[in-house]
Amino acid sequence: MDIDYAMVEQYLHEHIPLSKTMAVSVTSINGNGVILSAPLLPNINHHSTVFGGSISAVAILSAWTFVHVQLQILSIPCRIVIQSNSIEYIKPIEEEFQAHCMTPPRQNWERFITAVSKRGKGRVILEVEVYSGGLLVGKFQGEYVALKLKETG
Amino acid sequence: MDIDYAMVEQYLHEHIPLSKTMAVSVTSINGNGVILSAPLLPNINHHSTVFGGSISAVAILSAWTFVHVQLQILSIPCRIVIQSNSIEYIKPIEEEFQAHCMTPPRQNWERFITAVSKRGKGRVILEVEVYSGGLLVGKFQGEYVALKLKETG
Repeated sequence: MDIDYAMVEQYLHEHIPLSKTMAVSVTSINGNGVILSAPLLPNINHHSTVFGGSISAVAILSAWTFVHVQLQILSIPCRIVIQSNSIEYIKPIEEEFQAHCMTPPRQNWERFITAVSKRGKGRVILEVEVYSGGLLVGKFQGEYVALKLKETG
Repeated sequence: MDIDYAMVEQYLHEHIPLSKTMAVSVTSINGNGVILSAPLLPNINHHSTVFGGSISAVAILSAWTFVHVQLQILSIPCRIVIQSNSIEYIKPIEEEFQAHCMTPPRQNWERFITAVSKRGKGRVILEVEVYSGGLLVGKFQGEYVALKLKETG
């Protein structure tokens, strides 16, 4: 994969303005998944730690970005929608944090891509681990649906 | 209860700056629970609907506000922390939306207040319904912990 991180970041900031306010940046996109980062300050709460809503939002974005980038690589234009998620806040976050959406097991991913390609709709569960200062501080699981868009032109 | 909505709103905007960016406002606080509202524009995504991260964040805030206000009324100073949550996004949201944190069953609430008062720590599960244009568009459940603060002064 040869992904332009700046372009992905710009896409997020332009289309989801809250990601710009949260100062979300792309740390890596590779075979292991997608890592997005965000600093403390724009995401701070009344305890001077990161607001749970920001942790959730960055985790949601990391998994969305994973699906978005993978479908772009495969040239399958899709509308990607989150259906549900759960998240566990393990420790308070006192500094910059990273949301790492992990590449799902190959079988699950192939089933999803086949469903999208052949039936125009696929569903996949993605796991995200949230880290700060090298510690696991959160665990997220989200269910995403991709709906194939008709070619236009 | 005689709650100053503007004061609660100001507290949120000052201490959790993302709530100001999301333009969260207090719609009601009464015996039925807490309703927070937010408009589409600052919370928009690439589909011109509300970003899932914003829906989550406003739901998280509504339940946090419920616990915060109730403990203030009872003059029990606490640190209130979210432990986990799950959320289902039922329909895309195309306009202003409301997160309604419902007053929990009396028995659960009393158990929580007793635990906080007597043991300095209590845990409660809160349910939030998200509405837009009169339709139920999301369902949230969050687990919150309150830790009683020592009196200072």
